[in-house]
Amino acid sequence: MPVIGRMKRTLAWGDCDPAGIIYYPTYYRWMDAATWALVAEAGFPAQRMRTELYTLPLVSAECTFVSSPTFGDECEIRSHVELWGRSSFTVQHEVVLLGDTQRQLARGSESRVWCRYTAGPGSPLHGVRIPQEVRAALGAPLA
Amino acid sequence: MPVIGRMKRTLAWGDCDPAGIIYYPTYYRWMDAATWALVAEAGFPAQRMRTELYTLPLVSAECTFVSSPTFGDECEIRSHVELWGRSSFTVQHEVVLLGDTQRQLARGSESRVWCRYTAGPGSPLHGVRIPQEVRAALGAPLA
Amino acid sequence: MPVIGRMKRTLAWGDCDPAGIIYYPTYYRWMDAATWALVAEAGFPAQRMRTELYTLPLVSAECTFVSSPTFGDECEIRSHVELWGRSSFTVQHEVVLLGDTQRQLARGSESRVWCRYTAGPGSPLHGVRIPQEVRAALGAPLA
Amino acid sequence: MPVIGRMKRTLAWGDCDPAGIIYYPTYYRWMDAATWALVAEAGFPAQRMRTELYTLPLVSAECTFVSSPTFGDECEIRSHVELWGRSSFTVQHEVVLLGDTQRQLARGSESRVWCRYTAGPGSPLHGVRIPQEVRAALGAPLA
Repeated sequence: MPVIGRMKRTLAWGDCDPAGIIYYPTYYRWMDAATWALVAEAGFPAQRMRTELYTLPLVSAECTFVSSPTFGDECEIRSHVELWGRSSFTVQHEVVLLGDTQRQLARGSESRVWCRYTAGPGSPLHGVRIPQEVRAALGAPLA
Repeated sequence: MPVIGRMKRTLAWGDCDPAGIIYYPTYYRWMDAATWALVAEAGFPAQRMRTELYTLPLVSAECTFVSSPTFGDECEIRSHVELWGRSSFTVQHEVVLLGDTQRQLARGSESRVWCRYTAGPGSPLHGVRIPQEVRAALGAPLA
Repeated sequence: MPVIGRMKRTLAWGDCDPAGIIYYPTYYRWMDAATWALVAEAGFPAQRMRTELYTLPLVSAECTFVSSPTFGDECEIRSHVELWGRSSFTVQHEVVLLGDTQRQLARGSESRVWCRYTAGPGSPLHGVRIPQEVRAALGAPLA
Repeated sequence: MPVIGRMKRTLAWGDCDPAGIIYYPTYYRWMDAATWALVAEAGFPAQRMRTELYTLPLVSAECTFVSSPTFGDECEIRSHVELWGRSSFTVQHEVVLLGDTQRQLARGSESRVWCRYTAGPGSPLHGVRIPQEVRAALGAPLA
């Protein structure tokens, strides 16, 4: 069973556009932050990622926009890994409006590769096997 | 033949992430700006869109990341409308690195609906027929 | 005694720059959100501001950067109104690193005017007396 | 005589807020980009800064907002170094609306230090003497 990460965001004034609704790239900012939070929860917070020279570049990302929140709306991003490769993985995100209705706002996904730098940011990087610790923590099927 | 809009961007310091490459939501900021620029070129600049109560909400967006620019790289976003519905349309974007190689950095698309507000931002909106002027200017096939 | 608002932020991957530290305009995004949160706490959340046609344009903003957080750092923005005019007010913000040290990261301020639109966004606006309810809630001295 | 850098920006949809005007941290994004552009013009483009392990952290920044541009407005950021220290310098920025009026939109400044990393991003950094080449190119008074 996949582990679902949950990250809350109140839609800020500066996350909106002149239509008074969410500026759509904000969803990608949220999905990005939600993936890092999920990985942190799985034992790899920012500092460890940095120390062990890991990074998580994207192959692709997509999002479908269902209903637009406005300034001040409380949202939750619910994320889980949907597809597990050797080094690649796909994170599925659902954004819902908190409150009575739990209305879905958007759903999207990110395809990423678990990579390691040869020598830190700027140096060449290559895909490596996703740490077993991450797979276990996030409920990946046995490989 | 579709008309191709061209928008230049130098990748800014603040558009990058700690990996020293483009922070991926930046591509969506660029695609959004490129669509507005394309529509402006087709006779509907910001001021006219506002006056005539038009807006261009998204249905979905996706992007594939091929190669990552770093701070200072000169990029061009090349955009055209790929699919024409009555009120919906899909814009295809290609981002290339300017210079000798013209290397492709990313390619993506946005599905949008040409909408009109009942009474400006915040009021209800509904899809309307894409203005004939826009279709003609951007090389849409005859309806 | 001024009421101090507190807003937490975990420094996101996309809030950093290629130096691996906070991209400095992020502080202004935080200060902006902190002011809106403070005003919400004082009885004027986003929806009420919108309904009553209020907005809070800035006259000026400044910030001194003391120490830079990196990706993943947990920060708190502590905000209070320092100066009360009839319609203008100045919000003082302090950003600290949460954890043992409570190290100060930055301190800044925003000068704003409590304004009302004639007829919503885009229409003319003019400064109005700051609501007594806000002054009372945020510990303003008696006028 | 100081050399004045000029950088153009068309105010994008996503640079605006629900009031339909510039979201104020956008000015700081622009000032930051304008400083990097000025330094590039003075012989130190992004790639050279990276190779020579230079970076330009801020001490403080401030901005006064005079008049707000709206979506689609063509702006120019005019920048020059106003104060030269040994390693510190202050850049003065003026943002004007292009067109007939050349109306001033904002004016601000950034205090920065010319620094060098011991070993690239993440390593300790210390202020170094501003390269003579930069001072000469930007019209600094003789030291």
